[in-house]
Amino acid sequence: MRENKVVYGLIGYGGMGRWHTEILSNVPEAVIGGIYDIKEEKREEAKEKGFFVYETEEAMLADPDIDVVLIATPNDCHKPIAIRAMHAGKNVISEKPVTLSSTDLLEMENAAKETGKLLTVHQNRRWDDDFLIIKKLVEEQKLGHVFRIESRVHGSRGIPGDWRKEKVHGGGMVLDWGVHLLDQILYMYGDRKIETVYASLTNVTNQEVDDGFTAILTFEGGTEVLVEVGTNNYISLPRWYVLGEDGTAVIRDWQLNGEIIRKTGRTEETVVPVKTAAGLTKTMAPRREDTIVKEDLPKVSGDIADFHRNVVAVIRDGAEPEIKLFQVMRVMKLMEAIFRSAETNQVIEFQDQV
Amino acid sequence: MRENKVVYGLIGYGGMGRWHTEILSNVPEAVIGGIYDIKEEKREEAKEKGFFVYETEEAMLADPDIDVVLIATPNDCHKPIAIRAMHAGKNVISEKPVTLSSTDLLEMENAAKETGKLLTVHQNRRWDDDFLIIKKLVEEQKLGHVFRIESRVHGSRGIPGDWRKEKVHGGGMVLDWGVHLLDQILYMYGDRKIETVYASLTNVTNQEVDDGFTAILTFEGGTEVLVEVGTNNYISLPRWYVLGEDGTAVIRDWQLNGEIIRKTGRTEETVVPVKTAAGLTKTMAPRREDTIVKEDLPKVSGDIADFHRNVVAVIRDGAEPEIKLFQVMRVMKLMEAIFRSAETNQVIEFQDQV
Repeated sequence: MRENKVVYGLIGYGGMGRWHTEILSNVPEAVIGGIYDIKEEKREEAKEKGFFVYETEEAMLADPDIDVVLIATPNDCHKPIAIRAMHAGKNVISEKPVTLSSTDLLEMENAAKETGKLLTVHQNRRWDDDFLIIKKLVEEQKLGHVFRIESRVHGSRGIPGDWRKEKVHGGGMVLDWGVHLLDQILYMYGDRKIETVYASLTNVTNQEVDDGFTAILTFEGGTEVLVEVGTNNYISLPRWYVLGEDGTAVIRDWQLNGEIIRKTGRTEETVVPVKTAAGLTKTMAPRREDTIVKEDLPKVSGDIADFHRNVVAVIRDGAEPEIKLFQVMRVMKLMEAIFRSAETNQVIEFQDQV
Repeated sequence: MRENKVVYGLIGYGGMGRWHTEILSNVPEAVIGGIYDIKEEKREEAKEKGFFVYETEEAMLADPDIDVVLIATPNDCHKPIAIRAMHAGKNVISEKPVTLSSTDLLEMENAAKETGKLLTVHQNRRWDDDFLIIKKLVEEQKLGHVFRIESRVHGSRGIPGDWRKEKVHGGGMVLDWGVHLLDQILYMYGDRKIETVYASLTNVTNQEVDDGFTAILTFEGGTEVLVEVGTNNYISLPRWYVLGEDGTAVIRDWQLNGEIIRKTGRTEETVVPVKTAAGLTKTMAPRREDTIVKEDLPKVSGDIADFHRNVVAVIRDGAEPEIKLFQVMRVMKLMEAIFRSAETNQVIEFQDQV
């Protein structure tokens, strides 16, 4: 602590590391004590930006000023650095995915228990506005009982040309984007158990790691959730598509274009079939306008800096962490079930522990 | 035959029966010899429209003028009528689904073999323009190797309030719309084998039969196909969504709104991450405009009357039927696999015979 501020040590000054320095500039209760990166040029860059720079990881971990180490390195490095940092008496925030397997995570959890230090994970997308809108809709039962949720992220660039392409570093889209989308769903559904998982991976532009996936989760109570990431999709399907008994909601994009359409309760006695291509259909005939109502999506406002505000409150005041390790473990096991399902092309019974 | 025209006897004068009389008015080589419906009021309606009306099915089947019996009744009646008609020496066109199970279909096939009569099925949606566009795209490899196809039909009316709601009559959406969407996919992929099937049904507005379903078919060679029907979807996802290695195609609706986006081959060296909601992403950053090209969907023109023109050619000139019984059987077995997968929540290995 320094003047009652929580002092951060940042390891890894790539895209995410730089972005954390921006977010932290909005959190007056936190201060960046210093930065370390394994690459000389990144350390130079950090110096030029005016940060204190450590020449080694050991130097940072030995600095008694540092309260919390924020790890923003490639995925395979999170675990060893986190364990060393906790044993050096530091609290730890890891970028997502926390590590590459549930056994690795168990080691990290044990280190947290042994040392009594905080270990948490930057699941920043719990603060995405699009997610918060859907969470609000589902919680307020705006659509009645929700029987299907589809959460998709589609791009067309393949995997970026860095370590995310490589298996050894924990690359691939399940671990990169999947970890966010799955965390959102599990967080929203709190204590509802997942029953089964069916998934397939794509290898369109990358053979070493998955460059996309589709997973279907069935929850107790009958809700089916589709989670999908695509990186060879030149046209995107909507970010969110939610089906309730009383209506449907869509969020098309990151700009939050979308709407809700709900039934009004008014019904039609006679349905006139419509001609659709080479056929007639009563079933797919459009509804009469007074039987449905179109509504705007609710307004929400997520603030990603709340993640760090919570970390500060945990360290300074003993608050509950927003991102809890048992949640992180549940998502990790779900990702493992996705890999297993895709590999065997079988439905996996998920041994869920809520 | 009457003046070298093929004479149709139409059984069932509901929505589809009436529509057949319209289509047949565009086929000069065919003539409607007469109509029978089990309901007095429908027979009256047919008479008022100027058609010859039989008072019993037997009377129609005993009429030597009738070359082909077109069955447009509820689904459970197709089989007994078809078998009686073939044994009375008539060729038969059945509305889809031809019957309710593959064992029933086998009986019908055997009757066709015994009597040497034509048995075919009105799979009219092989002439849908939207389908013909997708078939053309796939065949001409416009998108490169296609690794995923999604075919959806979404409405929000539930199941129409007639026999389609009832199990005993072969109601439900797998048999009603599924039979079309699956037939399209199998027809398009000709001799490529289906390996597995995973499916779930919905019972949102109807507990007796499925009011929607999602099925995932995996084909040899690695293509995954999603086929979905929804009747409680107040907002529709696109009718077709096709992912190829070189681009994506979408057809949004029956009006054929949609487009193709393909890569040009130009690449970008440096990708600038974009901020999306509460996060940064390089993967999902939009492409630079010169690396992609947007194209119109190809033009096609299906003519549903071609179905009856083919039947006429089969009966008059011994041509090959467009809708072959082995294709109909394959779709029937696929629907059975969908029901079995949904019931057990398991992946079904499909014993495909192409």
